[in-house]
Amino acid sequence: MPTPTGVGTEELRRANLRAILQTVHTHGPTTRAVLTKQLGLNRSTIGALTGELQSLALVSEEAAAVGGRSGRPSHLVVPREDNVVVAADVGVDRIAVALVGLGGEVLDRRTRGHQRGEHDVAHVVDAVAQMVEDVLGAAPGVRCLGIGVAVPGAVRASDGVVRFAPNLGWVDEPFTDLLAQRLGRPVVTGNDANLGVLAEHLRGAAVGYSDVAYLNASVGIGGGFLLGGRPLGGASGYAGEVGHMPVDSSGPVCRCGAVGCWETKVGENVLLRHAGRLAGGGPPAVAEVISAAKAGEARAEAAVIDVAEWCGVGIRAIVNLFNPEIVVLGGTLAQVWRAAEDRVDAAIDSGPMVSPRDDVVIRSAGLGGDSPLIGAAELAFAPVLEHPQAVPQAG
Amino acid sequence: MPTPTGVGTEELRRANLRAILQTVHTHGPTTRAVLTKQLGLNRSTIGALTGELQSLALVSEEAAAVGGRSGRPSHLVVPREDNVVVAADVGVDRIAVALVGLGGEVLDRRTRGHQRGEHDVAHVVDAVAQMVEDVLGAAPGVRCLGIGVAVPGAVRASDGVVRFAPNLGWVDEPFTDLLAQRLGRPVVTGNDANLGVLAEHLRGAAVGYSDVAYLNASVGIGGGFLLGGRPLGGASGYAGEVGHMPVDSSGPVCRCGAVGCWETKVGENVLLRHAGRLAGGGPPAVAEVISAAKAGEARAEAAVIDVAEWCGVGIRAIVNLFNPEIVVLGGTLAQVWRAAEDRVDAAIDSGPMVSPRDDVVIRSAGLGGDSPLIGAAELAFAPVLEHPQAVPQAG
Repeated sequence: MPTPTGVGTEELRRANLRAILQTVHTHGPTTRAVLTKQLGLNRSTIGALTGELQSLALVSEEAAAVGGRSGRPSHLVVPREDNVVVAADVGVDRIAVALVGLGGEVLDRRTRGHQRGEHDVAHVVDAVAQMVEDVLGAAPGVRCLGIGVAVPGAVRASDGVVRFAPNLGWVDEPFTDLLAQRLGRPVVTGNDANLGVLAEHLRGAAVGYSDVAYLNASVGIGGGFLLGGRPLGGASGYAGEVGHMPVDSSGPVCRCGAVGCWETKVGENVLLRHAGRLAGGGPPAVAEVISAAKAGEARAEAAVIDVAEWCGVGIRAIVNLFNPEIVVLGGTLAQVWRAAEDRVDAAIDSGPMVSPRDDVVIRSAGLGGDSPLIGAAELAFAPVLEHPQAVPQAG
Repeated sequence: MPTPTGVGTEELRRANLRAILQTVHTHGPTTRAVLTKQLGLNRSTIGALTGELQSLALVSEEAAAVGGRSGRPSHLVVPREDNVVVAADVGVDRIAVALVGLGGEVLDRRTRGHQRGEHDVAHVVDAVAQMVEDVLGAAPGVRCLGIGVAVPGAVRASDGVVRFAPNLGWVDEPFTDLLAQRLGRPVVTGNDANLGVLAEHLRGAAVGYSDVAYLNASVGIGGGFLLGGRPLGGASGYAGEVGHMPVDSSGPVCRCGAVGCWETKVGENVLLRHAGRLAGGGPPAVAEVISAAKAGEARAEAAVIDVAEWCGVGIRAIVNLFNPEIVVLGGTLAQVWRAAEDRVDAAIDSGPMVSPRDDVVIRSAGLGGDSPLIGAAELAFAPVLEHPQAVPQAG
């Protein structure tokens, strides 16, 4: 009989190392006692593993308060926040950048408009690079593990090329390589809604659900899906394009060229224009319209009702197609749903629903507008969470 | 060290038994030599396993023609077609029933309209039961392994209750139990499009693809999806309801109550009415309209063009949502696509496509209109393919 080989033991050890780091990253500081119980390992093994994570400078250990039935103190294993990633969310109107520490805390967060309103890839690379350097420059002594970027478009997984981002006017742009060259750091890019559903599942409204539809509207609408616990990617990683569902052949021509796409009905600028406001004001402008509607301004009220009804029409289609347990709404969709839930519900109920209505939970994003940003941070943390030992030893 | 237990060996043996039966069921008669190679087992093990399948009366062995380089004859392992299932496809206009032998051959196939055009569940149970008894009565000596039924609606996996079948007018109908009681035989029921994509993947146009969208139009439209090799079920097994995607707010009111559902634009009766024909003629009537269009009848031509364009609009939405490798079209969708591929393509190309257009293959169903029927047969075969030893020993 073969005896257990060193390789097998080493693989097991790596899996346990990974499990500890992922636990403290996702759930925060955790006692050795809890880790021992959760992972089914003995105390000395946990001690050796947390010791290795300490020597990699990924966690620290603190003496926890004396507690529990035995009254015996247990070391608290704490993710070290001086391990950071920089996350960026490239929107149509604005770019957000965050410095996120291991453990998931946002340590710094900045937003700004695009340079001179320009969306071309060179300008966006410039702007993102400058913002990344700014937040890193303001945080001396951190170890930067990588850069994660969310973009409102289809990203080819193999090389980070942005295949198609209609609201930025990008087709086949090598954005990821350009930014990585500019920064001299590893960059990973993902679709904003795919990253949003990941973040909501890890840290937001969809914790504990395995069939999740995340729908996020700003200028356009993104859709990210978790089906049976797995992200929906499709054959090439481009699935989830909900914004260009055709919902109204009599509706306006979309910037994509087709007629009556869902995002011509429920984007934030759609709401602003319906309400007689200037486009481009973002979530604060949407909030103003909603306040005005509540205060009785007829035009604002009509705009909110119209957008709410179209929200419901699209949500019904998505529920019928994907049969999720939970629909998580972000951006304008969340704002409008909170303001006019009855109107959204009425539109959902105007047609058939494949699953019993009570079985579908609808919620606002737990991370607000930051779900894609937090998801981009998780994307950048992923390699270290997968291979803690491969963490770079210099900042 | 523990030594391998009998249980482990027994499990391995069962897995190999299953693998052999599934191979000959899916691919037809196969030589022992090929099985030996495919399964990585030695000849005596294969011999013992095929011997067991013979004793279960699931396969027979024939001396194959002398062939191959060695010139040594190899036994041919043949699925025994006297193991049958009866499959039924309950459509809106008609019911199809087939006697299908192990190995997948359709041994008998019958269709008829609903009794007095009635869709209520008692009438449908009566009609299906009568047809099942008729085909079994005409095939003495077979061993019936079970009954599989495809219905155009959402089926709850746990108990076979048809939750929602708008085109039959069913809500929460215990169809499966009623039919099983009536026949005194096990019955399994599934959604027609989910069974269609299964059949197309096993035996049709989608063999070898793992991201598949199957879209089948008759009176309504069903959608069945394979994503990353796994069937899309959704949280409760109801996913894939494509027929009620809202595509046109100015469009007709659907029988479901909503406005402008996709199936108000591309169902077979839609085409027939546009062309000035009576509804209810099924695929032959659709074929007649297409012939008339080709012969230059203006009204038929206009109807085909209109439906073709709406086919394209819906296919584009599905491709953007699911990013499949292949879209398999059935029923009216296939007929119209073959007749007016350029029009369908033009509508697909009128808006954005997330994946490069050339990366998406569009095909007619390899099994024609029978994909759901063949899928229902596979559903009925599944328990025996999973546990060959549990096959009932009396017909």
